[in-house]
Amino acid sequence: MKTRAAIAWEPNRPLEIEEIDLDGPKEGEVLVRIVTTSLCHTDMFTLSGRDPEGLFPAVLGHEGVGIVEEIGRGVTSVVPGDHVIPLYTPEDPNCPYIKSGKTNLCQTIRKTQGQGVMPDGTSRFSYKGRMIHHYMGTSTFSEYTVLPEIAVAQISKEAPLAKASVMGCAVPTGIGAVRNTAKVEAGATVAVFGLGAIGMAVIQGAKMQGASRIIGIDTNPNKFELARSLGAHDCIDPGDFPRPIQEIIVEMTDGGVDYSFECIGNVNVMRSALECCHKGWGECTVIGVAGAGEEIATRPFQLVTGRVWRGSAFGGVLGRSQLPGMVDEWLRGDFEVDPYITHNMTHEQINTAFDLLHAGKSIRSVIHFQPNETMKTNSLPGIIVPA
Amino acid sequence: MKTRAAIAWEPNRPLEIEEIDLDGPKEGEVLVRIVTTSLCHTDMFTLSGRDPEGLFPAVLGHEGVGIVEEIGRGVTSVVPGDHVIPLYTPEDPNCPYIKSGKTNLCQTIRKTQGQGVMPDGTSRFSYKGRMIHHYMGTSTFSEYTVLPEIAVAQISKEAPLAKASVMGCAVPTGIGAVRNTAKVEAGATVAVFGLGAIGMAVIQGAKMQGASRIIGIDTNPNKFELARSLGAHDCIDPGDFPRPIQEIIVEMTDGGVDYSFECIGNVNVMRSALECCHKGWGECTVIGVAGAGEEIATRPFQLVTGRVWRGSAFGGVLGRSQLPGMVDEWLRGDFEVDPYITHNMTHEQINTAFDLLHAGKSIRSVIHFQPNETMKTNSLPGIIVPA
Repeated sequence: MKTRAAIAWEPNRPLEIEEIDLDGPKEGEVLVRIVTTSLCHTDMFTLSGRDPEGLFPAVLGHEGVGIVEEIGRGVTSVVPGDHVIPLYTPEDPNCPYIKSGKTNLCQTIRKTQGQGVMPDGTSRFSYKGRMIHHYMGTSTFSEYTVLPEIAVAQISKEAPLAKASVMGCAVPTGIGAVRNTAKVEAGATVAVFGLGAIGMAVIQGAKMQGASRIIGIDTNPNKFELARSLGAHDCIDPGDFPRPIQEIIVEMTDGGVDYSFECIGNVNVMRSALECCHKGWGECTVIGVAGAGEEIATRPFQLVTGRVWRGSAFGGVLGRSQLPGMVDEWLRGDFEVDPYITHNMTHEQINTAFDLLHAGKSIRSVIHFQPNETMKTNSLPGIIVPA
Repeated sequence: MKTRAAIAWEPNRPLEIEEIDLDGPKEGEVLVRIVTTSLCHTDMFTLSGRDPEGLFPAVLGHEGVGIVEEIGRGVTSVVPGDHVIPLYTPEDPNCPYIKSGKTNLCQTIRKTQGQGVMPDGTSRFSYKGRMIHHYMGTSTFSEYTVLPEIAVAQISKEAPLAKASVMGCAVPTGIGAVRNTAKVEAGATVAVFGLGAIGMAVIQGAKMQGASRIIGIDTNPNKFELARSLGAHDCIDPGDFPRPIQEIIVEMTDGGVDYSFECIGNVNVMRSALECCHKGWGECTVIGVAGAGEEIATRPFQLVTGRVWRGSAFGGVLGRSQLPGMVDEWLRGDFEVDPYITHNMTHEQINTAFDLLHAGKSIRSVIHFQPNETMKTNSLPGIIVPA
């Protein structure tokens, strides 16, 4: 079949929308029609060429939502018509990592996913006979995409598809890091470095856990209003202080925060995030993804005196068994996703979405593959970008 | 009063035994007669001049055991005759850190302890009118020493004073790191970097917790026999392998260990210890103390993919409320301390103890202040060094 897809032909070149060829789902695979997808910094990071695992040409995109159109042989857990979120962190109940109960880092298809192909070693995408890589096992910048069954989470049909794409990465990553990885408890103090979508979700998660004080840190003060509206008590710009920001936070909090989160991917900020933690018990969770070869550093004294450095991927969330419940929480009103969605636009406008993200002017731009279906609703949050 | 003490006059100079002046205990302080003390790498580290907080002249020593001789005004928890272990990590129940229940890092006298003085800002030690610094708040290389009440742990009088000094640092630090900090569970795999006394205690602790596989790592194969006798299943020398030791351990353990411990103070080994941990859940606990200004580094990917980097001081043990119970465990036979004691000698032979430790020929040398009282027993482990 044919599908419209935004192709990343090479690093640092705008995406190009093309009609490309898509092979149908093989055994254990499903064909999904993506209804909306949103843009994450990780897509931008890969497009920049700094991602050591980046492969080109590729169909990028890993934060989306869609409808199952067709299932391959052997697929039993979803049927055509099901609403699903593609999972770049799949969940195979037979994976030893998943069976351990200690991690969400399913390894079953990790190798082929990293090679930009499906588990059988081939790609479903091609253009004029040339192979196009899958990306993060999801490739949501294509209207139709093929996914392994273990990489789709079936969600409630009540969830509005016009907005649910942000449940594919930002929201579970941030809220999950707070609840599953750091296990922030009521009354705790929290510092959040980087007020993009994941940082905002960390703030929401910390508020839901009953944190007593949430400090947002960003060099772009335009993010502060939204951060405050979601639950941040203080927002600070490191540029306003002559000393390292960790020292400022330690002073603000009488010794440091109980929990910090790095939501940028900057190794220097990762150090600040560790060192702003309270001696004796403060824990820093790294969420951001750093560039190839970059390293974090600190004096080991920071650890010996009780600080903990850990990390989180996809918020520690088990995609198939836990993400559907998080969607239900959203639908119940436990948290909002509207504030993340600052822009809505068509598939053809995807490079504008990259520009907005790069300029720090958007939190999430949602791309609508069928604007007539999902974009022209009164309840849509954010700015509808004129075509 | 007068006391015999081994004085460190300056870095890298052998200690000198002198009769020095000791002021009696002030309010909230106790005078303790040290019966035995043992030597730890930290004493050697400070004597080397690499310790940024090292002060001279000083009475070193922080691993000892003794008897309360006199108490100052206001002291209520011990009386003369009590057997006590000096605590370089004191425990003040009114310290907010202790009250938090999250850490053993009591802050009440930390500042003055770091300055080499008692909590009132003065030293009890002097020689011909010249002030001599306290060290780690304990100064156990003096036959008599003055300690804050919150820095002594009252232990059972059943504990043989000829051996109990090792309960002052090495044993609780290692066993405590396993139980309190890392919380190693039955069946876990463990890597122990550095087979000195603390590494040996980590092995003992891991065995007590029911670890399924314990791997000892040291560049000195002479340590392997003792490590095996205490519970190590494998002992390896990084020099025997052409590749980084973390890669070897990951291969040996089908993905890495569940827990690792750095018991040296070498920042490169701290990296190996983190990176030999299992993806998804492996946790590295840093126990060793690095040199001034030295930093640890790794790719943040190590954390984002589920490894945890933490540290431990005095094994997370609350000195006054938990150490006495650990002494009772020893007396019950839950673990042995005899294997740590490789040498016994007199106070005058203390520089020989430093030489043995430096040469990697001892685990613990015990210094006996009253050889007639404690050194001439048939049950004493280790070599009695001829005077």
